[in-house]
Order: sequence, then C-alpha cells, then structure tokens
Amino acid sequence: MRFCSDNNATVCPGLLGAIHEANARATPSYGDDCWTQALGEAFGRFFDAPVAVFPVATGTAANALALATLVPPYGAVYAHGEAHVVSGECGAPEFFSGGLRLVSLTGAGAKLDAPTLERALESMSPSVHTVQPAAVTITQTTELGQVYRPAEIAALTRLAHARRLYVHMDGARIANALVALGCSPAEITWQAGVDVLSFGATKNGGLAAEAVVFFRPELVRDFELRRKRAGHLLSKARYASAQLLAYVANDVWRRNAAHANAVAKQIGDACGTALLGTVESNQVFVRLGESGKARLRAEGFEFYDWGANGSGEARFVTSWDQDPADVASFCRALKALQHP
Amino acid sequence: MRFCSDNNATVCPGLLGAIHEANARATPSYGDDCWTQALGEAFGRFFDAPVAVFPVATGTAANALALATLVPPYGAVYAHGEAHVVSGECGAPEFFSGGLRLVSLTGAGAKLDAPTLERALESMSPSVHTVQPAAVTITQTTELGQVYRPAEIAALTRLAHARRLYVHMDGARIANALVALGCSPAEITWQAGVDVLSFGATKNGGLAAEAVVFFRPELVRDFELRRKRAGHLLSKARYASAQLLAYVANDVWRRNAAHANAVAKQIGDACGTALLGTVESNQVFVRLGESGKARLRAEGFEFYDWGANGSGEARFVTSWDQDPADVASFCRALKALQHP
Amino acid sequence: MRFCSDNNATVCPGLLGAIHEANARATPSYGDDCWTQALGEAFGRFFDAPVAVFPVATGTAANALALATLVPPYGAVYAHGEAHVVSGECGAPEFFSGGLRLVSLTGAGAKLDAPTLERALESMSPSVHTVQPAAVTITQTTELGQVYRPAEIAALTRLAHARRLYVHMDGARIANALVALGCSPAEITWQAGVDVLSFGATKNGGLAAEAVVFFRPELVRDFELRRKRAGHLLSKARYASAQLLAYVANDVWRRNAAHANAVAKQIGDACGTALLGTVESNQVFVRLGESGKARLRAEGFEFYDWGANGSGEARFVTSWDQDPADVASFCRALKALQHP
Amino acid sequence: MRFCSDNNATVCPGLLGAIHEANARATPSYGDDCWTQALGEAFGRFFDAPVAVFPVATGTAANALALATLVPPYGAVYAHGEAHVVSGECGAPEFFSGGLRLVSLTGAGAKLDAPTLERALESMSPSVHTVQPAAVTITQTTELGQVYRPAEIAALTRLAHARRLYVHMDGARIANALVALGCSPAEITWQAGVDVLSFGATKNGGLAAEAVVFFRPELVRDFELRRKRAGHLLSKARYASAQLLAYVANDVWRRNAAHANAVAKQIGDACGTALLGTVESNQVFVRLGESGKARLRAEGFEFYDWGANGSGEARFVTSWDQDPADVASFCRALKALQHP
Repeated sequence: MRFCSDNNATVCPGLLGAIHEANARATPSYGDDCWTQALGEAFGRFFDAPVAVFPVATGTAANALALATLVPPYGAVYAHGEAHVVSGECGAPEFFSGGLRLVSLTGAGAKLDAPTLERALESMSPSVHTVQPAAVTITQTTELGQVYRPAEIAALTRLAHARRLYVHMDGARIANALVALGCSPAEITWQAGVDVLSFGATKNGGLAAEAVVFFRPELVRDFELRRKRAGHLLSKARYASAQLLAYVANDVWRRNAAHANAVAKQIGDACGTALLGTVESNQVFVRLGESGKARLRAEGFEFYDWGANGSGEARFVTSWDQDPADVASFCRALKALQHP
Repeated sequence: MRFCSDNNATVCPGLLGAIHEANARATPSYGDDCWTQALGEAFGRFFDAPVAVFPVATGTAANALALATLVPPYGAVYAHGEAHVVSGECGAPEFFSGGLRLVSLTGAGAKLDAPTLERALESMSPSVHTVQPAAVTITQTTELGQVYRPAEIAALTRLAHARRLYVHMDGARIANALVALGCSPAEITWQAGVDVLSFGATKNGGLAAEAVVFFRPELVRDFELRRKRAGHLLSKARYASAQLLAYVANDVWRRNAAHANAVAKQIGDACGTALLGTVESNQVFVRLGESGKARLRAEGFEFYDWGANGSGEARFVTSWDQDPADVASFCRALKALQHP
Repeated sequence: MRFCSDNNATVCPGLLGAIHEANARATPSYGDDCWTQALGEAFGRFFDAPVAVFPVATGTAANALALATLVPPYGAVYAHGEAHVVSGECGAPEFFSGGLRLVSLTGAGAKLDAPTLERALESMSPSVHTVQPAAVTITQTTELGQVYRPAEIAALTRLAHARRLYVHMDGARIANALVALGCSPAEITWQAGVDVLSFGATKNGGLAAEAVVFFRPELVRDFELRRKRAGHLLSKARYASAQLLAYVANDVWRRNAAHANAVAKQIGDACGTALLGTVESNQVFVRLGESGKARLRAEGFEFYDWGANGSGEARFVTSWDQDPADVASFCRALKALQHP
Repeated sequence: MRFCSDNNATVCPGLLGAIHEANARATPSYGDDCWTQALGEAFGRFFDAPVAVFPVATGTAANALALATLVPPYGAVYAHGEAHVVSGECGAPEFFSGGLRLVSLTGAGAKLDAPTLERALESMSPSVHTVQPAAVTITQTTELGQVYRPAEIAALTRLAHARRLYVHMDGARIANALVALGCSPAEITWQAGVDVLSFGATKNGGLAAEAVVFFRPELVRDFELRRKRAGHLLSKARYASAQLLAYVANDVWRRNAAHANAVAKQIGDACGTALLGTVESNQVFVRLGESGKARLRAEGFEFYDWGANGSGEARFVTSWDQDPADVASFCRALKALQHP
C-alpha cells in the first residue's frame, strides 16, 4: 500500500484508452498529428482563453523550458526555496537557460507571499554587475500541499508585472488545486496574472503527459526551437497529446483529483494531533515519531520520510487510484498509533 | 497510405501489451521500478556483454546526452554531414554539451569511411587555440538507409581509439541493420569498437522507447545527473522500460524490422531504374520526376520529397505495420510510372 | 579626492616600469614569453610551494574560470551572500560553468563561518534530483573589509574537504589581508587548505594584473582550454605577466597594501562612533546620516553610498596612491561631522 | 629577427604614451572614466557614423561576444573554414552563445564569396529540426592576408540581409586593409553593410586594445551584460580606452599599418617565385622547401611553418615596429635562397 508519491500511480483508463484510440493508424509525426493540432482549441476551452500548448516529456522539462524561454541567461528567477525547480530538478533551469540564477525565498507552506517577494525585489540593483530580475515562479499546489488562492496569486503577479518580470506557475498538481478551490482554471492562472504554466497530468493519471501553456502568445517566441533542441519534441507526439486531450475534455482531471484530495482528507483526519498544517490537496504531512513510522511500515504501508533525519516526520501522497480499502486500513493504523 | 517515416507508424501490440502489464499497480518512480531495474540484465543478454542502460524520452536526447557525457564543451565530434545529430536536432549536441563542435565529413550513402576520417583527424592541431577532437559518431542504419558492416565500423573505431576519441553510434534504426546483416547485436556494437549507443525502438514499433547503452561502465560518469538535469529522467519510467524489455526479450525488434526491410525491398524492386542506390534497410530513395511524384500522390500515396527543390527525388520509409495490400498497391503504381 | 574604490587608483611606478621593461623587443605571444614562463617560479617562491599560475584579464574571469574548472555544471558552490561572485559578477560563475548554482550563506562581516557552512552541507541530499555540492568559495579580504585568520580558513576547508568539496579563495585584495595579518602567503592559502586562488593585483597598483593560482597541480585539468575559449588568453600576455612578476618579487604588494591599510585605519579612527565594525584592511564602513554624507561631498570627497536607501551609510576604500594630504583633509572633515 | 606574428610586436610610443596620460590621477572604474566615455564620439568621427563602442580584453572576446549578442543559441553562423573564429578560438563563439554552430565555407584567400554563400544559404531549411541561419562573419584582412573590396563585402551583406542574417566583421587587422585599399573606415564597414565590427588595435601597436563596434544601436541589446558576465568589463577600462582613443584619433593606426604593409611588400618581392598568392597587407605566404626554411632559421630569422607537415610552406607577418635593417637582411637572405 503505497502513499509515497502520486507518480507511483498507474495510468487511468481514460488516458490509456486515449492512447489506444490514437493508435489506430499511421499518422504524421512531430506534432503534425490531429491530436496535437487540437490541443490549442481544447485547452482554450479549458482555460476560457486563447492559449498556445506544447507537450513535453516531463514536468522538469516543462518548467525549465518555460523559464529558459522567458528569461535571459543572466536573469534572476524568484522562487520558494522548497520549490521543485530549486530542490528537485538538479539545476535544470540553470542548464536550459544557460545559467540563470534561482533566488530562494521563504514562506509558510512553501508559498511565496507578496511582502517577502516585494522586499526581495526592492533589494536588487539594476546595474550591469548583477543578475537581472526576470521572473517569478510559484507552484500550485505547493510542494507542501498548500493551495494559492486567486487573490494571493494576483498579489504576487502585480508585484512582478510592475517590474516587468514574468510569472510562471508550476502546475504539476494544478488539478488538485482546482478541485480544492472549486474555482475555474482561468481564475488561478491568467485571470490572476500567470503568464506561462507548466501543466501536469502525469501525477494525476497520465503516462507521460505534461505541457507548457502560454497565456500570452507573444511569449512563445523561440519555445519550439528550444524544445526540439532539448530533445523534448516527441516524434510520436500524438500519444502525449491524446492523453492531454482526454484529460481536459472529459473531466478526467476533476474525477481523479477529487478522489486523491478526498482520501488525503480522510487520512489527515485520522492523523489527529500528529498532523502538521492542514490538508488542502493530496499531500499530508505528519509527525509520528520514528517508532510510529516504523510501526506503519511493519504493517505494509509505504511512504517517504520528511524533514531532518530523526525528526519523526513523514509525507503521505494520495493518487487517483488509491484503493478505498487501503485508505481505510491506513486510517485505522494511524488512529491506532494515537490510541494504542 | 503513408510511406513518410517510420515514426508515423503505430505502436505494435507487443509493446502496447507491455505498457498494460506495467500498469497493474502502483510502483516506485524515477526508475526504481522492477522494469527499469531489469534493463541491465536484459540488454546484457541482448548484447552479450555487461552494459549500463538508461531510458530517455527521444532519440535526440539519447544522442545529445551520450555525446555531452563523452566530450567536454570544447570537444570536436566527427560526423557525417547528413547525420541526424548534424541536420535533424536543432543543435541539441551543442546545447547539451555547452558548445561542442560537430565536424561534418562526407561519404557515400551518408556513411563515414576510414580514409576520410583519417584525413580529418590528421589535420587537427593539439594547440589550446582549437577545439579538441573528442569523439566520432556514426548512424546505423544511416540517414540514407545504408548499413555499416562490422569491419567498416571497426576501421573507424580503430582510428578513433588510437587518438583517444570515443565512438558513439546513433542506433535509431539499429534493428533494421541487424536484420539486414543477419549478425548479432554485439558484432556491430562493442565488438566493433562502439563505446556508447543510442538505442532506438520508437521507430520500430515503440510509443516512446529510447535508451542510451554504455558498453564501458567507466564512461557512464555523470550521465544520470545530466539526464535528470535535462528533464529526461521520466517519473513513470516503468512504461518506457517495459517497452524496451519487451522489445529486446521477445524478438519484437526482429519481427518488426524484418517486415519493414522486406517491404522496402519490394518497393525498391518496383522502382526499376528510378531507384537511387541500393535498398539495404527500410528506406528507399528514388528519382521519379516531379510529375511522377504528383501522380503517386494523386493516387493517395504519401511520402517526402528529397534532394534539392525540383530534383524529382523522393524518400519512402517503411514500418513494422505497413499493410501488405498498401505495399502491393504502391508497387503497382510505381511500376505503372515506368511503363505507362 | 576619491575614496570610492581601489580600482579607481592609478598604476604604481613599479608595475608601469615592468610594462616598459617588457616592451623592449618583439617576443612570442600567448604566454610563450619569458615573463609568463617565469611566473611559476616567482609565485612558487612567493607561496613557498609549487604552483601553476595563469594570468587573466579580470578578477571576475579569475573567479569564474577557477570555479568552472573545479565544479561540474550541476555543482553547488557555497558562498557568502555578499561575496563578489554572488553579487558583483552578473552571473559569471553560472555562465562559465554551464549553470552551477551559488548557494548563499550568511555570516558577520561577509565571512563564512564553520557552523553555518556545516549546517548547509548537512542539509544537502546526494540524490540525482538535486545539484551536487562541489566547492566553497571565500573572499580574502571580504567584501566588508574583514580578514579571515588562518584558523578560520582551516576550519572551513576541513569541512569542505571532508565532503570532497574544493575550496576557492577570491583574493582580489589578498595583499591587504597579508599586511593586516602579518603572516605569510602560504599561511592563508594552501597551508590553510585553499585549493585554488584568484590572485588580484589590479586593485593594489596594477593596470590589469590578475591570475589564477593552483596549489594542487592535478586541479589545473582543462583550465587552459577554458581560458582560451573565454577570451582570457591574452595575445600579449607579457604585459600582464611582467606586472605580476614585479608585484610579487619586489615587495610592491606589501608596500602598496601597507599604505592603503594604514590610511584606512586613520580614516576609521577619525570616524568615531560613526564607524561600523572594525577596520581590518583598506575598507571603512560608516553611518554618517544622509546630511553628513552630503556635507562631505560638498567638500569634494567622493565615495559610495552603502546599505539600503536612506540608511545614511557609506563605504570608503583606500588605495596604494592615496595622497596623505587628502587623507588628512578627509579625517578633519570626518571629525568635524562629530564635533560641529 | 621575428616575422612570426604581429602580436609579437611591442607597444608603440603613441599608445604607451596614452596609457601614461591616463595614469595621472584616480578616476572612476568600469568604464565611467572620461576616456571610455569619449570612445563613442571618437569612433563616430573615425567611422563617420553614430556607433556604440565597447572595449574588451581580446579579439577572441570581441568576436565571441559580438556573435553571442547577434545570434541565438540555436543560430548558425556562416564563416570561412580558415577564419579565426573557426580555427583559432577553441570554440569561443559556441561557448559565449550557448551552442551556436559555425558553418564552414570555402573560398580562395580565406575569403567568402557571394556565390558560395548563396548556395549555402539556399540549402538550409527553416524547420524546427535544424539550426537557424543567423549571421555571416568575415575577416578583414583575411587569415591569408587578403583584403575584401567594398563591393565584395556589399555582395555578401546583401545576401545576408535579404535573409535577415546579421553581418559581423572580424577586424583584428582592419587597419592593414584600410591602408591597402586607401579607402575610408566607413566604406569597408557600415557603408558596405557590416552590422557589427570587432575592432583590433593590439596587433598594430596596442598593449591590449580591442573593441566591439556596433553600427546599428538597436543591436547592442544586452551586450553590456554579456560582457560583464564574461569577465570582459575591465575595472580599469581607462587604459584600454585611452589606447583606442589615441589609435583612431592620431593616425597611429595608419602609420603603423602602412609600415607593416610596406615591409611585407618588400619581403614578398624578395621571395620571387616562392611567393604564394599576392601580398595585399602584412602577411606573406611562401613555399621555400624545408631546406630553405632551415637555412633562414639558421641565419636567425624566426617565423611559423604553414600548410601541411612537409609542405615546405611558411608564413611571414610584419609589424609596425619591424626594423628596416632586419627587413633588408631578411630580403637578402630570401633572395639568396633563389640564387644560391
């Protein structure tokens, strides 16, 4: 029973079926197929705005290609210190851009907040001796499972845009945020000032289905050349595109995320006082002590340690395919830890 | 009826089935799954040698990551001017390596030959003022459908190794070469002196199934960090690895390539004097005149132009899933062009 | 009367004379001249150890080339947040290395301290998902004019070396530190564990005289190719090398730095309670209020603001050629600010 | 008696005097000095057009920074295969740009010619799969001492501009071309369509005096950030700028180049039938046989071999400071080789 990560999950029937449908006959390659060609309209409906959509192989590629397209090699990108681009991509943004600098900021729940960002932006000098502020990137939901409200995003994007910085959102788990907030895709993206989005479906039922979504066409610039040059123009792009189409068109994203969020809530409730923070999406953080974690593992539950060595902390992540029976077992085990 | 490219083809049942089998339950991500873990042994058997195998998303990534791992930013890499790394990857090798230089050589059939390589290597100077010769890369089968014999490869690798250059093979269509030569995978790779191979299965029935294969473990070096940093460590690596396992373990590669080669031969035979060169694998090059090409297209056959504008040349590429009835129609149409 | 920066200073007669001596006749270029060839032995005597010495055009180039030679593109380099590599080089280390990451640490006086470094090093994970700790860089004297004692350096290098990280020292003002400490060049470099040094003479009387000094020959690796590739192999290297020879051989470094440090001390003493911190070398930091600064400027003294806008802080930097009469005037003016 | 290279030459009194004049007192750094500030106007007069001028440390840096500013990382730059950017800079253009590709063309005298360039440009495809043609670079005088006429340059720039490519000129020896042609600086640069120029004075009497000259201000873009980031913003920029000012303002460039060209002519005339090509500037290429070269060297004349090993070829380069007596001796020795 795995609660390690949503990328441990299987591919959901809706997206696997889309792959089969795309496999009926020979079709043009490198994105000249009908599925890839339909992405713009489908995502335009999803986001209620004209968009440009480009599938890539991984979320790391989506983030790094988006940032490299937005900022010059001497650009500074403001991010939370726990953001995936900072802590989980082995320097991909630096590589793709030819050496940009990530400026790490702090903030509760791995969220950037406007006052912190403002202080950081004000301390920069415009001289030729320093890197040049160029973009802000935020993660929705955050690496600590928290969800940015539309107004929180707007406060950040106003600060950024006032200084001519672009705003990128890492939406590896954007569906979980949408379900949590009950708002529209538009409200937490372009309407709140997001310029470019890494749209992830892989963690929520996809096989390998990520895309970069531009809300301002003029920012696409040389993205397609950069993508090809990075080995992220898929020759059989149809299979990624077919997944993405099925994902946004058929409410697959909503059903999958709703399940993951709901079971995370159940698990969070079962954690009692061991729960750290609140459960806003499909991630649960707890302090169980080392012995508590050991007991759970002895009962067959798998999950990652969290925090410093010996902190007794753990992270549980739930997925679209989490078996309700497993969840029930897990909740019982968690409760038993507290009332032994 | 498409004869445009083997990456237009569908995914074969053997590899699609492997994806389904890998989808039974949640499993560790980022290559810690049992399929990825089994690649080393499976490819070791395939190549009859210890190897290190790393899946990546595309052939461009395989080539560029392999070269970037082998050569420094100031390295020179010798390649045929028609090689995919030179003409079809938008500068990916330069990007991944931080600025290596591709030195373009000539040779019939898009093949490098030893005398040409030797002259090029002899003209280089070891001074700090010039880029430093670092590797040779060859494509099997070549971009013109020709096949390197083991002795031809060995002649090139001897020259390279004598000057401490590494040898990379772009094996996007290696299965077609193996079938054409009837020799073992070992004979055209490490036994002939190849150090690192881009192993492609996508063009021969895969969905997205490429891998870098190292025949000398000490050359792996920092490949895994470079792959992650380039966004080519797939989170759900299991689906690529499952395809690769099925491909090498079950003779899928052979059956698929044998079909593609066989129908290419049929088509080549039907071309009569229009045929350019010989058909050695699954590519056929012809000079039909512009009117000949127009007639074929009017009958529903799709393919790419080749050569200079107005040359009247065309390329046909066949795939594992080429319908025999389509091939028969195509052959009839080709013959009709000659005996109108 | 300028107290802005030591790079505002003129070239001292000793080094200008060396340029003249090197100009007597035609001589080989690109470092094959007798001055450049003599650098190894001269710096070997200066540092009392075998060294490899390479002149470059600027301190930024020295730092960035040194780091790029020591660390891979995915390397993390630990530095104080106020270090020149972080705040004054427009991302040169990132550029030269192909994307390394500078990890900014805090510490009084712009000095790194061992406990802070240790905590930072312990928080890193060795996984493929993160950048890889690779080097530590410190500045002697620091950007706040403070001086590392040999034992302080040794404490940092022990931590670094225990984890296989290299240690680089930015010695743009190393002569000022040597004079301040009264110790030997060896004691604050290789004997304290420094692996590679950016040796600066430009700020202390040179025209353009910077060098990278390797204390461990095996670390030179491909430095010379990287230098050429960066446009820092000077065709008429003799003029930089002649300066560097005269600088270390004839006590020019000591006399020049002793003067600059001494007059900085005088100025610091004249600042009274306005002085921030202590004057350890040739930099003085003060809080005079905006009106105090305005009065000084009205009297013809030039210097830079420091700190946040409106902080009333300023920085004075002294040079080898600071006129004693100017210094006396400045001291009088500073005292007058306090006893009006 | 050295005839190896013009970068073996000394610094001429005019430029050394300028360095002294710039050394009178402390002055702002990083180009905020009066000499650097005066460059725009002085070069504007020299070129009879508004220009932006930026000093850098070396000709390699000038070329690579200019190209990196003009072209994207995936750009292709067309150059003669013997151009310094191709054969003498260890891949600096690739490094500075993040991976551009140099496309090597052929042409007599190391000159590009319009038909060759046109064929190359026509063979390129605009697809995302290939590098994108972005610039043409030519060297004046060429690496074989030949001089482009204004009409030859114009023919090349017309082709380039018609396809929206920029044109860069490597003017490491531009003064020699100006003297040879007897035309104005404007005629062989912007009036002939050159967009950006690497202006070299080091080979013609400078200490280290190179600059990038933009004839179209909108192309400057981020040049200053790139220069800083590459370690080529000199802290004491005044000394380079003072040289450049004296060089263009006082006919230093003309006197120095006229002498070098004149003695090269004398030497060429003395070579008789051994002379290869014609002497157009300050370089002489000859075929003397290995024994002829050995005899010259035995008499104390120093020069570089040329061509393939054993070709018996040599290159002589003359400088502003070539002693007429040495030249006379050399001519006698060369004549003696022919009439022994």
